[in-house]
Amino acid sequence: MNINASVPVGVLGASGYTGQELLRLLSRHPGASVAFATAASAAGERQEGVELVKIEDAPLASAEIVFSCLPHGISGRFVHEARAAGRRAVDLSADFRLSSEAVYGLTEFARGRVRDAELVANPGCYPTAALLALIPLAQAGLIDASREIVIDAASGVTGAGRSAKRELLFGEVAEDYRAYAAGNTHRHLPELRAALVREGGFTGDLVFTPHLLPVKRGILETIHVPLTRVLDGGTAVGLYEMAYAGEPCVMVLKEGLPALRDVVYRNRVALGVVPVADVRRPRLTVIAAIDNLVKGAAGQAIQNMNVMLGLDETAGLVC
Amino acid sequence: MNINASVPVGVLGASGYTGQELLRLLSRHPGASVAFATAASAAGERQEGVELVKIEDAPLASAEIVFSCLPHGISGRFVHEARAAGRRAVDLSADFRLSSEAVYGLTEFARGRVRDAELVANPGCYPTAALLALIPLAQAGLIDASREIVIDAASGVTGAGRSAKRELLFGEVAEDYRAYAAGNTHRHLPELRAALVREGGFTGDLVFTPHLLPVKRGILETIHVPLTRVLDGGTAVGLYEMAYAGEPCVMVLKEGLPALRDVVYRNRVALGVVPVADVRRPRLTVIAAIDNLVKGAAGQAIQNMNVMLGLDETAGLVC
Amino acid sequence: MNINASVPVGVLGASGYTGQELLRLLSRHPGASVAFATAASAAGERQEGVELVKIEDAPLASAEIVFSCLPHGISGRFVHEARAAGRRAVDLSADFRLSSEAVYGLTEFARGRVRDAELVANPGCYPTAALLALIPLAQAGLIDASREIVIDAASGVTGAGRSAKRELLFGEVAEDYRAYAAGNTHRHLPELRAALVREGGFTGDLVFTPHLLPVKRGILETIHVPLTRVLDGGTAVGLYEMAYAGEPCVMVLKEGLPALRDVVYRNRVALGVVPVADVRRPRLTVIAAIDNLVKGAAGQAIQNMNVMLGLDETAGLVC
Amino acid sequence: MNINASVPVGVLGASGYTGQELLRLLSRHPGASVAFATAASAAGERQEGVELVKIEDAPLASAEIVFSCLPHGISGRFVHEARAAGRRAVDLSADFRLSSEAVYGLTEFARGRVRDAELVANPGCYPTAALLALIPLAQAGLIDASREIVIDAASGVTGAGRSAKRELLFGEVAEDYRAYAAGNTHRHLPELRAALVREGGFTGDLVFTPHLLPVKRGILETIHVPLTRVLDGGTAVGLYEMAYAGEPCVMVLKEGLPALRDVVYRNRVALGVVPVADVRRPRLTVIAAIDNLVKGAAGQAIQNMNVMLGLDETAGLVC
Repeated sequence: MNINASVPVGVLGASGYTGQELLRLLSRHPGASVAFATAASAAGERQEGVELVKIEDAPLASAEIVFSCLPHGISGRFVHEARAAGRRAVDLSADFRLSSEAVYGLTEFARGRVRDAELVANPGCYPTAALLALIPLAQAGLIDASREIVIDAASGVTGAGRSAKRELLFGEVAEDYRAYAAGNTHRHLPELRAALVREGGFTGDLVFTPHLLPVKRGILETIHVPLTRVLDGGTAVGLYEMAYAGEPCVMVLKEGLPALRDVVYRNRVALGVVPVADVRRPRLTVIAAIDNLVKGAAGQAIQNMNVMLGLDETAGLVC
Repeated sequence: MNINASVPVGVLGASGYTGQELLRLLSRHPGASVAFATAASAAGERQEGVELVKIEDAPLASAEIVFSCLPHGISGRFVHEARAAGRRAVDLSADFRLSSEAVYGLTEFARGRVRDAELVANPGCYPTAALLALIPLAQAGLIDASREIVIDAASGVTGAGRSAKRELLFGEVAEDYRAYAAGNTHRHLPELRAALVREGGFTGDLVFTPHLLPVKRGILETIHVPLTRVLDGGTAVGLYEMAYAGEPCVMVLKEGLPALRDVVYRNRVALGVVPVADVRRPRLTVIAAIDNLVKGAAGQAIQNMNVMLGLDETAGLVC
Repeated sequence: MNINASVPVGVLGASGYTGQELLRLLSRHPGASVAFATAASAAGERQEGVELVKIEDAPLASAEIVFSCLPHGISGRFVHEARAAGRRAVDLSADFRLSSEAVYGLTEFARGRVRDAELVANPGCYPTAALLALIPLAQAGLIDASREIVIDAASGVTGAGRSAKRELLFGEVAEDYRAYAAGNTHRHLPELRAALVREGGFTGDLVFTPHLLPVKRGILETIHVPLTRVLDGGTAVGLYEMAYAGEPCVMVLKEGLPALRDVVYRNRVALGVVPVADVRRPRLTVIAAIDNLVKGAAGQAIQNMNVMLGLDETAGLVC
Repeated sequence: MNINASVPVGVLGASGYTGQELLRLLSRHPGASVAFATAASAAGERQEGVELVKIEDAPLASAEIVFSCLPHGISGRFVHEARAAGRRAVDLSADFRLSSEAVYGLTEFARGRVRDAELVANPGCYPTAALLALIPLAQAGLIDASREIVIDAASGVTGAGRSAKRELLFGEVAEDYRAYAAGNTHRHLPELRAALVREGGFTGDLVFTPHLLPVKRGILETIHVPLTRVLDGGTAVGLYEMAYAGEPCVMVLKEGLPALRDVVYRNRVALGVVPVADVRRPRLTVIAAIDNLVKGAAGQAIQNMNVMLGLDETAGLVC
């Protein structure tokens, strides 16, 4: 790679938390330069040295890759505009995650397809952590599909966006903790199920319960996996190490459990495993931690961009 | 009750978080007065208007009821001393929770025995929330014992005590979140299992995973219950409402899910239920929230004291 | 006081942080009962056991005392309505704090006037702490008016209200800290200056700089006072102890400095003093801490109500 | 600079917060490589990919520059050892800050001397922010030395170190705020005064009061400066812009005030100014914000290293 030749990229929707993080990472990326960045309400202001413009003024054709951090439901239209202008796109919304129009960009399992993709659907934050935890077990046929996988996920508040809502005020969230969208009603579930079938052939039941953590960033998922046979800790660690050998953005803990602090500001998933004692049938508890804004959004989008451009996959990222 | 006749009580170990909370609540209790309070390192200082003394200087006989907030393993000896001095005792440590010597003081299910008890073992914080959530379902025979109950519990840091440990520093805990004692290795589990058998006849498997929350106080447990038959939301709420009819310290939410803010500084468990959609076999998610220092420790101890003394069960408590 | 005869009171604007706190405290008050509480958006919901109504449906005449927690600029009109209905009123907004129509209710210095007041203007949170710290020094003639008093005040976010604003989101405030309204532009300053002249005869200059703290509640003010003569620590403490002898809601620290934890959830100001070393002219640093929602708002309003009704001044309050 | 030739450096005391941050930054530095890192209690563990060794096993001679993050009082001895081994050193403790043996490394005002220094005393975090705010005004002769400069500083808890102390527990610090070392008793004051005299010729009085903020990192200082003549906002901004023209690590705000979020994880001071209204004599309020671990410690140490090695001054740093 020629260090002087940086690829022009554009960001749609740069003022939310995901867009801010993406712009922050892109502005320091050795192989990319920000051609434009849009923001509805903050047009005219500068962010990370880039002057924000209104979306209708975005020179789509000036970018080789267009990222969209626009809200779900709105993003699709603008991604189509970028595609119509002949640009490749990485969509960070949910609009294409279940669509055959796009490559689902869980990078570790989709490199080949991402490389040549015209449109990448960047995975959701909750699914990213869950899939990286579950696919190796599913592929090894170790999950007992007759029992349910239970996933309790906790996310920092930047996962809920930057719109002014009373329930996200500091005065409400600090010193609080709660579940939401319990009972399998979270909108990320179909994405998670579809990818588990596709990548791991898993067709059993899931129970997914997200929680709102009083932290700014980070997702930790406690994943309860019923097993078809007993796995001791060392074997389980070994299985993950083998599955992720050479992966720069996956950290498998030999012992201990990951915490948010292991992953924040990093494009990394940290995985820890513990066999469950004192139960009649074999079970493994897997803990997966990511930074929702990095490996769960902007960082993985850049990881995908790096693959699309043939750059070092971790260029501009701290893993 | 004669409002002028306050009962003298003593507190062993008043300088930890539980002891502080107990002293705070007792000092405002309309029917009790603090005869003495001990603290190893803070002897001579005043706390809530009470001068702390060394434990060897505690005038045990001056109290009608002696509370012990001493650490597990140490508490037992001093409780025995208080008993030898003819005093009734409420032990907040784990030392008697599995012992036939004491009444296990989960007040809502033990009033009759607590009333005449000479020694009450105050339940642990994690078991209190889990038991209040599970016993009604177990007693109704609704739990499918062939599948595992999965409990993910998250606790504020005061649950880990007030000793100076690096991993509990603000610089470590703030903006962090982690699981610990995963794989069914937490020391509260035998207590939880024993009480579930005793009160609910439940002998199936449990998977219990505690987490450390970056908040000062509060426990929220997300409890995944496999059911023997389908329960819709209204029926589930109705079952809890019936089980806890007239209970002043149990709040059953008709809709929505409890959060820590519903319970902190209150001697209350808040319970919410959601049937799980999109699974082949029936399941209920139950969320239970308590203040670990109040209903999970000092408040329930006072609730038990009130029962022991024939006072209004909620005297001195905000439920 | 007849414990059965509780005085009916009403609350206008019960859904903001101040209104919530007021309703919380009133609902547990031994001598008052809530006749009505209004909330624009939450009408029909229950809060602290009280069903909220729209303000136009408030039965003003059913209350002996009407509290207004409405926003500045709106409150005045409704307080006038309550007055027109013959009700006494305590206004927690700023609308009457500079008006001769109302008694300025800094309770410790206004008991006599509050007792018979028809309308009490409850002091602002920042002025409450500053005035309780400065008036004793001003009355003693100890402040060197030729040099400026510098007040750096830090407030928890509930002081900024409960409206949904982006800058008050958890994602913005957590791990942040900032000054605002610097350069003497805060709207509380005229109130502070007027009361300092009236109660302390102080006509010198002030520099007031508020800051936004990442905590839910509490105000701590670091007040730099130029003195006319040297005061050692003991003398300074003695002066405050004398000024506040017998005051139930003022805590003067003999040594050490107050922190927010000394005052949250209490109707108390905590005061600490330190003479400044290594300066050519005498100076005293005074630290004043209050809970902005209690002594800085709802608690002091109840303290004033207690005075107006001839109740124990601390009834229903923890000082 | 040859991108392949990275300079070997060593870190003494890598397990505290400052040492961790230094190792984190050095491990990503394009022109340096970590030859060794020591930690008393964590020897044998890996941190940022570096295996920690005991200090007695540190191969001092293998590093071109030795950084010491050892505690005050201990650091000096080991820095002398490194010097005896012929190594250049950057000491992050206070041990040489008042000594003529070392160059005081406030980079912006000491580049020439740092370049050739054998020993650099890295400035303290509080002095760094205060000096960068005050020196331009002092050099311009604008500070009225007949009145006191009042500095209220608030620091995140990592500034207090990583030793296990009860008062730094999450359960104590969260939701709290307090002043400490009030009355000019903080040990950083002599360093601040000496540098103000040396760089700005200022010999007037200071009042310095630090506070403990419930955040992990960041220092914000609110600095009240008595002026010799009136400065309007634009003129004050212009003066700072001129003083810091071309400085990569100083951000002067044209309007508004800096917050911690402007500086955390960056090697930057952010400065904002506001003239004070409604006072008889001219005054300026200056707000200075830094990350205590970066510009206040590890980042500035690397900035100094870059100068010492003739590298780009911001290599390996985000400013």
